[in-house]
Amino acid sequence: MTQPAATETATARRQRSDGRRSRDAILDAAARLATVEGLDGLSIGGLAERTGMSKSGLYAHFKSKEELQLATIDRANEIFDAEVRAPARSQSDGLARLWALADEFLAHLGRDIFPGGCFFAAVGAEFSGHPGRVKERILTFNADWIAELVAAASQAQAAGEIPDTPGPEQLVFEIDALLLMGHTTYAMLGDPRSLEQARQGLERLLGPRPS
Amino acid sequence: MTQPAATETATARRQRSDGRRSRDAILDAAARLATVEGLDGLSIGGLAERTGMSKSGLYAHFKSKEELQLATIDRANEIFDAEVRAPARSQSDGLARLWALADEFLAHLGRDIFPGGCFFAAVGAEFSGHPGRVKERILTFNADWIAELVAAASQAQAAGEIPDTPGPEQLVFEIDALLLMGHTTYAMLGDPRSLEQARQGLERLLGPRPS
Repeated sequence: MTQPAATETATARRQRSDGRRSRDAILDAAARLATVEGLDGLSIGGLAERTGMSKSGLYAHFKSKEELQLATIDRANEIFDAEVRAPARSQSDGLARLWALADEFLAHLGRDIFPGGCFFAAVGAEFSGHPGRVKERILTFNADWIAELVAAASQAQAAGEIPDTPGPEQLVFEIDALLLMGHTTYAMLGDPRSLEQARQGLERLLGPRPS
Repeated sequence: MTQPAATETATARRQRSDGRRSRDAILDAAARLATVEGLDGLSIGGLAERTGMSKSGLYAHFKSKEELQLATIDRANEIFDAEVRAPARSQSDGLARLWALADEFLAHLGRDIFPGGCFFAAVGAEFSGHPGRVKERILTFNADWIAELVAAASQAQAAGEIPDTPGPEQLVFEIDALLLMGHTTYAMLGDPRSLEQARQGLERLLGPRPS
C-alpha cells in the first residue's frame, strides 16, 4: 500500500522541483535582460521569444507583467544573497564583514553575472521616478543592504576597529557611493580598472582589508 | 530701398529666433521626460502629446527618433553648462573651482530642474548596454566632465592646496562617486539630506570649501 503513495509523492516532488527549476531559468533570463532593456522592457511576449518558451507557458508562471517584474526582483535578490551577502556573513568581526560585503559586491560585478552590472542599481535608476509596487520592492532591497552595511560599520566602530567619525550612516553613504560608481563606470566602459578604483577608495575610507 | 530689405532681415531673424525658442521648448520638455521615461521612451508621437504640438510640426524639427535623442542630449548639455560649469568657471584657483563644480552640481540637483535628477546619470544608466551614437554622445559629455574635474584637481595639487595622493584621476573618481550617490538617493527618496551627505563626503576628501 505504501509503495504507490510514495511513488506518487516522489513524482509530485519531482514535478514541483522541475517547475521551480524552469521558473528560476525564466527569471534568470528576465533578470539578465532587465539590466540591459530595463524591467519595463520585460514583456511576457518578449521573454517568450528570448527563452524559446510559449507565451501560454509563461502565463502559467506569471499572471501579469508586474508579477513578472516582482518575481524577477525576488530572483535577483536571491542571486545577490548567494553572490555577495552569504560569503560576507562568515566574517564575525565588524570591519572584516564591512570590507567583505563591499569587496564581494565588486567581485560580483567583475564576474559579469548580469550584462548590465548590478541588477539593483540598473532597475533602481529606471524606477526612481515611478512610484508603485516595483519601486517599493527595490527600495526594500536597498534599505536592507544599507542596514546590513550600517550594522557592520557600527560594530566596527564600537570595537574600535575604525574611527567613530563620521557616524555609520555617513560612512556607509560614502562606501556605497564608491560601489555605485564602480558599477556605473564598469557598466559604461567595461574596464575592470573601475572596480580597482572603487577598492582604492575603500582603502582610503577603511584602511586595508583585514586578512 | 534699404527699408524693405532691413525689414525682411529683421523678420527672418525673428523667425529664426522664434524657431530656436520653439525648438528649445520642445527639447526642454524632452529632456525632462527622458529623466523619468528614458531617452528610449521619447517618441515623436509621445512628445507631440506632451507638448501639444502636431507630429508634423515635430517632424519638421527632428527627422528621426535618434535625431531627437541626440538633440535632447545637446540641449541637456547646454543646461548643465549654464547651471553647473559656468558658475564654477569664475573660480580661478584649482581647489575653489573643484569645490565649485561639485557643489554647483549638488545645488543643480536641489533645484529639481529635471524630475529624475541628473539628466546624464539617468540616461547614462539607460544606455550603458546600448552601443551607438546616443551612448557615444553621453560618453563624450562624461569624459568632458571628468576632464574638467581632473584639471581642477591637478591644479589644486600643483599649488599645494590639497595633498598629492591620491592622484587626480583617483580623487575625481571618489568625488564623482559622491555626486552620483547624491543624485541616486535624492532621485529615489526625494530627501535633500542625500545632497548634504554628499557634501559631507566632499569635505572629508577636500577639506572645507574655500570662501
